Amino acid sequence: MHDVKIFDTTLRDGQQGKGISFTVEDKIKIAKLLDANGVSYIEGGWPGASPKVEAFFKEIKNVELKNAKMVAFGSTRRASNSAEEDVFLNKIVQSGAPVACIFGKSWDLHVHEALKISLEENLDVIESSIAYLKKSGLEVFFDAEHFFDGYKRNPEYAIKCLQAAEAGGAEVLVLCDTNGGTMPFEVSEIIEAIKPQLSTALGIHAHNDCELAVANSLTAVKHGAVQVQGTINGFGERCGNANLCSIIPSLKLKMGADIVSDEQLQALSSLSHHVYEIANLSPIDSQAYVGKNAFAHKGGVHVSAILKNPETYEHIRPELVGNKQEVTISDQSGLSNLIYKAEKFGIEIDPKDPKLKSLVQRTKELEKMGFTFEEGEASFELLMRRKLGLFDRSFELLGFRVIDEKRGHDEEVIVEATVKVDVNGTIYHTAAEGEGPVDALNKALRKVLEVHFPQLSSTFLTDYKVRVLNSEKGTSSNVRVLIETTDGKKTWGTLGVSANLIEATWKALIDAIEYKILKG
Amino acid sequence: MHDVKIFDTTLRDGQQGKGISFTVEDKIKIAKLLDANGVSYIEGGWPGASPKVEAFFKEIKNVELKNAKMVAFGSTRRASNSAEEDVFLNKIVQSGAPVACIFGKSWDLHVHEALKISLEENLDVIESSIAYLKKSGLEVFFDAEHFFDGYKRNPEYAIKCLQAAEAGGAEVLVLCDTNGGTMPFEVSEIIEAIKPQLSTALGIHAHNDCELAVANSLTAVKHGAVQVQGTINGFGERCGNANLCSIIPSLKLKMGADIVSDEQLQALSSLSHHVYEIANLSPIDSQAYVGKNAFAHKGGVHVSAILKNPETYEHIRPELVGNKQEVTISDQSGLSNLIYKAEKFGIEIDPKDPKLKSLVQRTKELEKMGFTFEEGEASFELLMRRKLGLFDRSFELLGFRVIDEKRGHDEEVIVEATVKVDVNGTIYHTAAEGEGPVDALNKALRKVLEVHFPQLSSTFLTDYKVRVLNSEKGTSSNVRVLIETTDGKKTWGTLGVSANLIEATWKALIDAIEYKILKG
Repeated sequence: MHDVKIFDTTLRDGQQGKGISFTVEDKIKIAKLLDANGVSYIEGGWPGASPKVEAFFKEIKNVELKNAKMVAFGSTRRASNSAEEDVFLNKIVQSGAPVACIFGKSWDLHVHEALKISLEENLDVIESSIAYLKKSGLEVFFDAEHFFDGYKRNPEYAIKCLQAAEAGGAEVLVLCDTNGGTMPFEVSEIIEAIKPQLSTALGIHAHNDCELAVANSLTAVKHGAVQVQGTINGFGERCGNANLCSIIPSLKLKMGADIVSDEQLQALSSLSHHVYEIANLSPIDSQAYVGKNAFAHKGGVHVSAILKNPETYEHIRPELVGNKQEVTISDQSGLSNLIYKAEKFGIEIDPKDPKLKSLVQRTKELEKMGFTFEEGEASFELLMRRKLGLFDRSFELLGFRVIDEKRGHDEEVIVEATVKVDVNGTIYHTAAEGEGPVDALNKALRKVLEVHFPQLSSTFLTDYKVRVLNSEKGTSSNVRVLIETTDGKKTWGTLGVSANLIEATWKALIDAIEYKILKG
Repeated sequence: MHDVKIFDTTLRDGQQGKGISFTVEDKIKIAKLLDANGVSYIEGGWPGASPKVEAFFKEIKNVELKNAKMVAFGSTRRASNSAEEDVFLNKIVQSGAPVACIFGKSWDLHVHEALKISLEENLDVIESSIAYLKKSGLEVFFDAEHFFDGYKRNPEYAIKCLQAAEAGGAEVLVLCDTNGGTMPFEVSEIIEAIKPQLSTALGIHAHNDCELAVANSLTAVKHGAVQVQGTINGFGERCGNANLCSIIPSLKLKMGADIVSDEQLQALSSLSHHVYEIANLSPIDSQAYVGKNAFAHKGGVHVSAILKNPETYEHIRPELVGNKQEVTISDQSGLSNLIYKAEKFGIEIDPKDPKLKSLVQRTKELEKMGFTFEEGEASFELLMRRKLGLFDRSFELLGFRVIDEKRGHDEEVIVEATVKVDVNGTIYHTAAEGEGPVDALNKALRKVLEVHFPQLSSTFLTDYKVRVLNSEKGTSSNVRVLIETTDGKKTWGTLGVSANLIEATWKALIDAIEYKILKG
């Protein structure tokens, strides 16, 4: 396999994603992570676009990067001035970044409609801009915007644009699928068609509008591209950019490209989650390679096979990318899932223990009622410990009452909950108001319990979902409540099922609290 | 382009996805949607795997499908008995589905490790199983499990398995990338290598473990495959199955396959969201083609270009897949949406009516709060009629109170609701007990209203879903309640948002009742 370099644009194109806005500190943090994880080029932003970008380039100079080079992004010069006079090109030079990546038009439509100059003039704009940056001592990459769309309408002109960049001295000609509409077989055909007409190395910059950005990037490498531009987790405008968390492991493990070390690859899952956290976005559990569910097995057939030989249902060993195997409990699973789970929970069990049979039985009954332990694993662990005689309740609920009252059409609903609990033989009876019945019950219960179990004060509910199970019975149907709780370090799921929404919620809430008390 | 058929397995392989568990009613609903949207084959499940699957096949017989054929899934026969004696093969025949799709081993490792039979015996298992189903009058597809992995280790044997299926009479040989680890260039190479050795049509069944399932599916079609197996939104185990919401538009718009009509393609975004709602999962906004952000433009350069000529930054017109362009300043597009909706509701409006502007304003506010009118269209119609002065409340709620009380650890929760309502100037104050707070409120309210509006007695709630909107606020977060109500003929969705679960439910309940009174 030829040499391939990863070019990360999370800090520039990734930030175009809806809901993503990095501070300078965020960007510094991400740049350090990228550097440690083996990325070769880190695009930091477009100097001149906002003061935040310049602040970032100033700050990053104080950070010692072991592996990566910083890249400043920009456009070719304005047609109305020379490259030497161009404000933005000079901002790139002043940024202090050793590498420049500038985009230019390669689709005649854009030259006419956006730049409003002649096709000839655009070629000169490209060549002179790159030549100026080269003369200023930078390594220069040329992003040929809309290259594939341009090539499909006017192949001669699209190639001329690349040749202009080549004449200017660009180190890599990056073919951009800016609108993300190109098919993988088009990528291979077009690259094969243009290669003989160029002597400069090619790169690829793909967008995910057809869910093909990863495929298009790998295809380009297969046909000789030496640089892949993308973002962590595929962040980016619309459907996002090419996802480096999928590209890096496929390049290394499937195509034999020596782009990151084994240790760096093992840090990939952690890198992905870290960047989600910094962006304040929820990870996508089904994400390839790094997602929480990427190696989660549900089907009973799969589970028993995988316990014998993981290769049967896993395309790679999850540890290679720092992920882990997961077996979920569901109505398709049997004893082998239970044993696997027990091991995971750190519960030693004898596969011949007669209590196990009654646990399988109880699990199936509860599943028939509507429990789905795959989302409420903490409830399942509590059930298992109870059934095996390994766990006693830390408190007992004697009763509760919740009153929701609305005293006029435009009045707010007032909620009050009272709770009666026995903790170590002492009975506590207390009350609280809340935003809703769940909130009020939660607050009243915690009033009592946090005195005895101070570790509860760090926990809070992060998700709450309700689902009707047998809808043909209308409002008297069973409902399933799923609660997700966190203490800032660990997150756990619990659930409750009942015809009464409040009771189902209450059960899930109690399990969430019991679990925290159990784990300390 | 040759003829290609879509084979949907949302109800079988899709349900293997973590957190997904469809009821029989859910499956019927999805099957109807798939049929209306132009899918050719709908795999309903594995008869014998659970009583739910058999209940589904029984029920679906009463549904008239316009376009699609039902498919029963299963495995090749057990090695220890003949095909005629095989319990599961006979369950397929008894299911009443006109099509069978059975999987068999094509990787020698699995024959040795899972089946523990000789390679020769497995070939006979494949051929005889298919021959029996064919003899029973079914159309039969063969899912060659782990085909690509098997081919890479032992190509001769993998091909022999396909030839055995061919000898048995299989209509399509489906190449399965069961572990999802295959690269697109391997798919094309392997298909080209096996084609000369087979006379039966090929299909593709891809998994997304390398984020390549869509690319692998399209590549297979490019090399002649006539059937694509996948799921709506790519639901499925681990990283999911090939996403039909990406495959269908690329096949039709980019590759010229005539798989669905223009109108069916326009219903794709709505199909995607509907299936997310049924599964009670949050849609992924960046999803290709159908995601909320798929055509959302953030960059200032892009926005101004796109307003002049959408082709500059959009690979297709979003309307082709029933999606819409989104730019930051969208009052204009907001208005055209409203006009479109009004037409659908049969409300005549003057586009210059000043009340429309305040309706756009109110819609935007509510959407910011978490309303999603796509799923609660009846609530939206009521809002529109109210804002345009076309609708008066039939009753006014003066207040309510709900008490949930649990008087001991093992006691049931007792629920009582009182309701005060003004109907035509007379005030009614009544009470009812219920299984839960929603049920009790509903019953108390109906006690009063059914006297005045007897048409309400035929209506009942068929679905109830709750989602937390801003989970960082824990139990005091806003929740969104979605209710689905039916009168046996028509089904409508309403919603309510509030920090209080009871209040949000109450709002959705009132809308559901108002809507029925309005429609008579």
